[in-house]
Amino acid sequence: MVAGDVGAVILAGGSGTRFWPASRAARPKQLLPLTSEVPLLLETAERVLPIVGGWPGIFVAGGRRTEEATRALLANLPSANLLVEPAARNTAPCIAWATAVAARQNPDRVLIVLPSDHHVGDVPGFRRALSTAIDAARGGDIVTIGIRPTRPETGFGYIELIDSAEADPRGARIAQRFVEKPDVKTAEAFVAGGRHVWNAGMFIFRARDMLDAVRRHLPDVAAMLDRFDEAARSGNEKEAVESFFSQMPSVSIDVGVMEKLDRIAVVPADFGWSDVGSWQAAWELASKRSADNAGSADLLAVDAARNHVVDATTTGRKKLVAMVGVSDLVLVETDDAVLVVPRERAQDVRLVIEELKKHRPDLL
Amino acid sequence: MVAGDVGAVILAGGSGTRFWPASRAARPKQLLPLTSEVPLLLETAERVLPIVGGWPGIFVAGGRRTEEATRALLANLPSANLLVEPAARNTAPCIAWATAVAARQNPDRVLIVLPSDHHVGDVPGFRRALSTAIDAARGGDIVTIGIRPTRPETGFGYIELIDSAEADPRGARIAQRFVEKPDVKTAEAFVAGGRHVWNAGMFIFRARDMLDAVRRHLPDVAAMLDRFDEAARSGNEKEAVESFFSQMPSVSIDVGVMEKLDRIAVVPADFGWSDVGSWQAAWELASKRSADNAGSADLLAVDAARNHVVDATTTGRKKLVAMVGVSDLVLVETDDAVLVVPRERAQDVRLVIEELKKHRPDLL
Repeated sequence: MVAGDVGAVILAGGSGTRFWPASRAARPKQLLPLTSEVPLLLETAERVLPIVGGWPGIFVAGGRRTEEATRALLANLPSANLLVEPAARNTAPCIAWATAVAARQNPDRVLIVLPSDHHVGDVPGFRRALSTAIDAARGGDIVTIGIRPTRPETGFGYIELIDSAEADPRGARIAQRFVEKPDVKTAEAFVAGGRHVWNAGMFIFRARDMLDAVRRHLPDVAAMLDRFDEAARSGNEKEAVESFFSQMPSVSIDVGVMEKLDRIAVVPADFGWSDVGSWQAAWELASKRSADNAGSADLLAVDAARNHVVDATTTGRKKLVAMVGVSDLVLVETDDAVLVVPRERAQDVRLVIEELKKHRPDLL
Repeated sequence: MVAGDVGAVILAGGSGTRFWPASRAARPKQLLPLTSEVPLLLETAERVLPIVGGWPGIFVAGGRRTEEATRALLANLPSANLLVEPAARNTAPCIAWATAVAARQNPDRVLIVLPSDHHVGDVPGFRRALSTAIDAARGGDIVTIGIRPTRPETGFGYIELIDSAEADPRGARIAQRFVEKPDVKTAEAFVAGGRHVWNAGMFIFRARDMLDAVRRHLPDVAAMLDRFDEAARSGNEKEAVESFFSQMPSVSIDVGVMEKLDRIAVVPADFGWSDVGSWQAAWELASKRSADNAGSADLLAVDAARNHVVDATTTGRKKLVAMVGVSDLVLVETDDAVLVVPRERAQDVRLVIEELKKHRPDLL
């Protein structure tokens, strides 16, 4: 291990319901091929592979319900690099633990923390931004990637920069503060002002800098990490995690660490990023067939345009889906359910989830 | 066999495509449960069972591709009463042959010829109309049922009555002439005038009267019937039909016989009849669930109304179909296909059929 060593921590603990019926408790969004033929988690790993020098440089943290499917998807990931959280405790304990594990090999290692369920359209641009961030991290900064906003989105947190994000798009900047999800008016002002970027949940730091920050701002978590390190030395980490992980506070890395730092470096960037927040977003990002229909289904469209038609069944041959005279719909079929909703109402799949919680929890 | 003997001939040779993907070459409309839990053919048979005194009084004529499914559906039908046509030759040869077969037992038997794929809402009314028709047939008339039109339908043939259909709704009338499918203006005049009824393809006659009419107006068909009768006496009818049925002219009973008769009796009636001509009609006739949704599927409707959702799959448990914010749609799922079309465009399933003929004949 050398000082130039870089690793990645991919957070694969999501349990979203916005892609029901394709997404389920045991098959959340990151395991689905939403914007291409490849599941988002695998795309995420492949995107950073050249930067971390291969699979041993990747750590994946996730829950027990998705453990089997995650191992199956990431066949080349070293078994020990899948960190299974016995209970969901938000991102701070998870990132702290993964950082501690990765630091055992080299405390100067730079780690890239990435969500597992986002889309990146411009991969070279993504790698350029990471390169800038890694340089800043090597200088001792804890760095985040700030996505230049393209719309007054109220569903994301923002990061306010000290000076304009446009001044020098390739350099790392200093953040003024983290801003929680704003209202529309505030978001519009953010977009117009040019000093706010989206917090995409990507963090880059030297392992020991993050561990120092955790020790300072989340001492309970740091104490637990010491316990895990000690157990690891005697080969009992799995048992220790099993017994004590759930005793850590449930807190996000933003609230638990980032917002408390004296200085956060930000790399403003613009690499076709999307959080793929709904079937509507999946359609926007998918490659289109004739009449702007998209999706994995075997579609016969007659006077039918701009539909997103997904065949997520696992048994038998794909069905032919014949659409006549319907447009702007989402249709998703799985082995046990079918969803039909207008694209522009894709967010309302949550209304189905509410009903299923009451009447058909087996379908969640 | 006595003179009061009544039998039924159910024409089950249809091969419609308007109910694709539920209907297929080997599973045409009459084999589908379109308006209730029971396939139309079985409903048709059960509707006349009390009139014909049980299953031995029923004859069913159909093609070879549907033979197996028809036998399976009509488990109580005597095997010899399923008349398998080796080739489709329209209704005249089919009805003539069935009449010849039924006449061997009793030439004075009154036969009721019925399409197999229609819906009757008022079964007692249907039976009353048949009773009137049977009385007229016993007097020597060839009788047809005339449905009082409820709209200026251009998809049906009409029968013009000599006097008003409204004068004595319970008696049999005399037809002036058969009228081919009219244009809208003519159809509107028919409905306003009150002297025209729909030709629903139901005919009631003594077997020997129909055989006399066939001998007079379709001598080629009559000659073939003699051949079949002779073969039947020596136990070889099946082989004779196999060899020679397809040599008969392809002609409808309307054109080949009815229109040439000097006198046709008509029983005007109104018993909630429908030819169930499309998924739209199936929705209209189906019992409705909340928000006027209908169909056999396991539907979860959220802000979704007046949809017709059919699960015609044959394997596994029914899928949950979740519809959010869509209305007035038809959705039909089978083991190998899904159809989505607005109800008001249900007739356009023919556009899908055209495409399938070119690219996926296996789905027809």
